[in-house]
Amino acid sequence: VERDLEQLSLRLQDFAERRDWAQFHSPRNLTLALVGEVGELAAELQWLTDGEVAAALADAAKRARLEDELADVLIYLARLADQCGIDIIAAAHAKVDRNETRYPVERSRGSAAKHSEL
Amino acid sequence: VERDLEQLSLRLQDFAERRDWAQFHSPRNLTLALVGEVGELAAELQWLTDGEVAAALADAAKRARLEDELADVLIYLARLADQCGIDIIAAAHAKVDRNETRYPVERSRGSAAKHSEL
Amino acid sequence: VERDLEQLSLRLQDFAERRDWAQFHSPRNLTLALVGEVGELAAELQWLTDGEVAAALADAAKRARLEDELADVLIYLARLADQCGIDIIAAAHAKVDRNETRYPVERSRGSAAKHSEL
Amino acid sequence: VERDLEQLSLRLQDFAERRDWAQFHSPRNLTLALVGEVGELAAELQWLTDGEVAAALADAAKRARLEDELADVLIYLARLADQCGIDIIAAAHAKVDRNETRYPVERSRGSAAKHSEL
Repeated sequence: VERDLEQLSLRLQDFAERRDWAQFHSPRNLTLALVGEVGELAAELQWLTDGEVAAALADAAKRARLEDELADVLIYLARLADQCGIDIIAAAHAKVDRNETRYPVERSRGSAAKHSEL
Repeated sequence: VERDLEQLSLRLQDFAERRDWAQFHSPRNLTLALVGEVGELAAELQWLTDGEVAAALADAAKRARLEDELADVLIYLARLADQCGIDIIAAAHAKVDRNETRYPVERSRGSAAKHSEL
Repeated sequence: VERDLEQLSLRLQDFAERRDWAQFHSPRNLTLALVGEVGELAAELQWLTDGEVAAALADAAKRARLEDELADVLIYLARLADQCGIDIIAAAHAKVDRNETRYPVERSRGSAAKHSEL
Repeated sequence: VERDLEQLSLRLQDFAERRDWAQFHSPRNLTLALVGEVGELAAELQWLTDGEVAAALADAAKRARLEDELADVLIYLARLADQCGIDIIAAAHAKVDRNETRYPVERSRGSAAKHSEL
């Protein structure tokens, strides 16, 4: 039940409205906030090798930090989509639908990194 | 049913595996890809006033572009969380739980913009 | 004399080498670090109106914070360019050369925001 | 002579003013534009190993793309600083001054990646 993104958006809406903060949550403000959170995520990974990232994910305290940073990105993304009235899960599925056509399995298998799009 | 984030992650997993692309989807690579998508989103909003953003959301073609950009951000975020084995919806709720305590409604109502955190 | 970007790059090179940190300064690591700094800059501006940004720039303490964030972005950008062996000032002038042609003054004056490129 | 950042800023100022574009160059707009350019830079590096980045830098066409992306980031950063009336080269040197104290050479040599700050 807690896996639903719309439920998270509704909770964020309620959280913001009870504090009278929706007035600050314009798409541009939320985009800048999203950028701030993505920056914090990048900073967590900036000096790590892939092996050190794996080790961080196996360490409770470091993993908790990464969970927090990913959560922050999702929170602002969900709030931004909600303030735009956009159903972001539906939009994501529509995008993957197009990518299924754009990158046919038979032509794309294991191909050069520049095609590793989602 | 399509509102479930885990379902999207499973679809992305399947999409990547059928193309043998999971090998490229390390957390650092996906973070750089996420940054690229957030950049495209920021570029859509860079010269617009808040009124022009509202107008763009009311225009079918411009709205579709914003839907796409938000979808791309979600897609890489979901894939990144999945490759880290992190349940971001749960992590987001845990974060909002803490924020409920950190920003009590009575003390936070309509307060200065620097407190408009989620 | 302190206005020269190459001089800053040489100082950063020296700073890193004396600490044996050049080993961590790969282009991808420095890009993630740059993203982190751009995120901090965005966070400074996320809830402000344009008027509040102007007021922040007129306030010594807030201005110092913005100076710091801009400086951090420049530091990682200069270091990244230097580690890539790229002369970024020359590259910027080459880009503006192209933009002079791409956006002729007579056709571009005051035109729609989407053309306000540099 | 072309290595001076202030000269680039003056050129961008002139470029914008002749097109009547300074009106669009608020700090928040330029920050979003900067984010867009950093996103393009990240996208260039997203699927590459460190070895592939080195190979790209040794390939004329790929190197030109990286030069362009770095130039775009510098252009918006220089314009942003200029519109804020901030001397970023001076601010960067002030920051490195502080870092010289914060990270004494003897205590910092080759130390853990999380200290590889500039």
